[in-house]
Amino acid sequence: MVDEAANVLPGSFPMVGGDGDYSYAKNSSFQRMIIDAAKEMISESIFDKLDLKSLGFDDTCGTFKLADFGCSVGPNTFIAVQNIIEAVQTKYRADHQDNHQNSSSALEFQVFFNDHYGNDFNTLFQTMPPSRKYFAFGVPGSFHGRLFPKSSLHFANSSSSLNWLSKISKEILDSRSPAWNKGSIICSGLVKGVSEAYSAQFKNDTEAFLNARAHELVPGGLIVFVLFSLPNGVPMIDSNGGKLYGFLGSCLIDMTTKGLIDEEKVDSFNIPLYFPTAEELKAIIERNGCFRIERMDKLPDPPLMRLKPSPESVTSQIRAVFEGVVKEHFGYDLVDKIFNFFTAKFAENFIFGELIKDHNNVNLFVLLKRVIN
Amino acid sequence: MVDEAANVLPGSFPMVGGDGDYSYAKNSSFQRMIIDAAKEMISESIFDKLDLKSLGFDDTCGTFKLADFGCSVGPNTFIAVQNIIEAVQTKYRADHQDNHQNSSSALEFQVFFNDHYGNDFNTLFQTMPPSRKYFAFGVPGSFHGRLFPKSSLHFANSSSSLNWLSKISKEILDSRSPAWNKGSIICSGLVKGVSEAYSAQFKNDTEAFLNARAHELVPGGLIVFVLFSLPNGVPMIDSNGGKLYGFLGSCLIDMTTKGLIDEEKVDSFNIPLYFPTAEELKAIIERNGCFRIERMDKLPDPPLMRLKPSPESVTSQIRAVFEGVVKEHFGYDLVDKIFNFFTAKFAENFIFGELIKDHNNVNLFVLLKRVIN
Repeated sequence: MVDEAANVLPGSFPMVGGDGDYSYAKNSSFQRMIIDAAKEMISESIFDKLDLKSLGFDDTCGTFKLADFGCSVGPNTFIAVQNIIEAVQTKYRADHQDNHQNSSSALEFQVFFNDHYGNDFNTLFQTMPPSRKYFAFGVPGSFHGRLFPKSSLHFANSSSSLNWLSKISKEILDSRSPAWNKGSIICSGLVKGVSEAYSAQFKNDTEAFLNARAHELVPGGLIVFVLFSLPNGVPMIDSNGGKLYGFLGSCLIDMTTKGLIDEEKVDSFNIPLYFPTAEELKAIIERNGCFRIERMDKLPDPPLMRLKPSPESVTSQIRAVFEGVVKEHFGYDLVDKIFNFFTAKFAENFIFGELIKDHNNVNLFVLLKRVIN
Repeated sequence: MVDEAANVLPGSFPMVGGDGDYSYAKNSSFQRMIIDAAKEMISESIFDKLDLKSLGFDDTCGTFKLADFGCSVGPNTFIAVQNIIEAVQTKYRADHQDNHQNSSSALEFQVFFNDHYGNDFNTLFQTMPPSRKYFAFGVPGSFHGRLFPKSSLHFANSSSSLNWLSKISKEILDSRSPAWNKGSIICSGLVKGVSEAYSAQFKNDTEAFLNARAHELVPGGLIVFVLFSLPNGVPMIDSNGGKLYGFLGSCLIDMTTKGLIDEEKVDSFNIPLYFPTAEELKAIIERNGCFRIERMDKLPDPPLMRLKPSPESVTSQIRAVFEGVVKEHFGYDLVDKIFNFFTAKFAENFIFGELIKDHNNVNLFVLLKRVIN
């Protein structure tokens, strides 16, 4: 029950808290677009696949319990949760349309917001929508472990969080290993050993997530998650995310050649993100066996992909997500220098035209149902 | 469901967060002594009055759900919760002593930590005992309103929190009212109009607490709380707490005569704490009608009362509790000045000899059972 992963670096670094210039709260419009794009698919999924009656929501009603895993600090998590609640209410009303005595107002909702211990729950709680119609709870800890009692959830959501690994495998940092990732801070997809090590860690972490949720979800309960994936045969470095994070890596390498950072320090830095293929993910879920895949589809492209954002806004979004990891590895004093370097180089080498032309990452929408095994 | 009390001043000011010199985490040894003193009575109460079988905890077991209302930031809340869990496990083992197949390890515990939105939940979460054997949740919001779904708790605990009022009544601040509390920052008990206004607010708040818990607790569920009370006929100013807070008031008045604070600012400052008599509390509970009083007893005196603490430690404990209220009313710049003034005057006029001789406040232990009405 204890969160072992909380002690494992660097997977436990949360988004930037508070409401400052680099906060996730102010720099998560890209993640918001993903949530908006998923809204329709979540509504359809709940309408088609959530069997409220078999979950015990008969005419006497009850409490529908849902959790957002990797919620960060809002506002995105509040929007995602509201979308789910509205879809469940619609489904409940449709189930009871012949019964005028009942309406969805009889359903109570209990919403659990989960993220690492280091997440800024104070900001999360203080920015909750005052008009919300649900009971709200914070749940600290790694979603790679157990967080809830047995069979205590009806619905689990996770948006853009399952790509985060709980740790960087040792061999990635070992100069004697074929998985040594010298000269790169991501799983570029160009070095077989590195890809295998990242992939193995993703498999372990996703299995841990599924095993924990298998205990926590009631039979018939649903999991919806969205993550970044890659088309078969496309290396991460050819995806938008890969290009962007690779660009951050190139800044770090530039800074070593200018003597601003030790080369060894950059060699030992790796971003704990992995983009699986749909097939890879499918195999993990099927091997786990506790969930049936009800839907696995490409999400419509968020409108951001069709726009040209400013270098500053891209930098702020990158910083809101990666500041914690960068600070832990390079130290507080280098954070500003690194991101200022990034901003300057990014403005000179604006790569978004290229990204818009050929964005190879796919936001994958996945709907799972807990089955009895 | 929305926490209206969160917008009402000054009842929503939490203890000092973090782990600094004036933090509640480091300055709550007095509250800890109350928890220690209550431990034995909680164990007895659970053994005698908690009917696990009628709550549905049969041989197949389940999840025992408990909440601590007004938890602040620990470590006290973790100790209180651990005491309750151990007592429930003892009771469960006693119920199943003939059955070697079952043990209390089959019971799962879900623990909810509640306090105002402004509470430092980040510190609470980051200092949770790593060895804990329960699923932990934070619940932000005023306990004077609903926080949980219907019938979703088996046990509610609250230690030294129910004395806090959700607000100061308007008439206390109205110079035309017989309840105007000029020259005092507490309900001294010497002015009838003031006492009546404080008492009415305490009645409203306690009723709101009981009404909310009546919805949330299952029939047969228990509430245990400890609060400061007064013997009949003893005014608050003659209790330890009253003397101490009255002393803080005298410092503020001294500061007005020295021109350090406006007199009007001090006149409009009132500490939102009320010490009821046992009879007063009993009447509120009986009028509510949702709970049976199973036990209402004086707590053994904490050992602090038999010791002579240093002026510095008393000041730190006072500051950990009242800094939030003082800061909100007098502004950030005056906080240090006020507490430094308090420390200096307190060292000169050390009143604890007197307190030890004649401490008229009583820590009242109350055990209630939810009955079907």
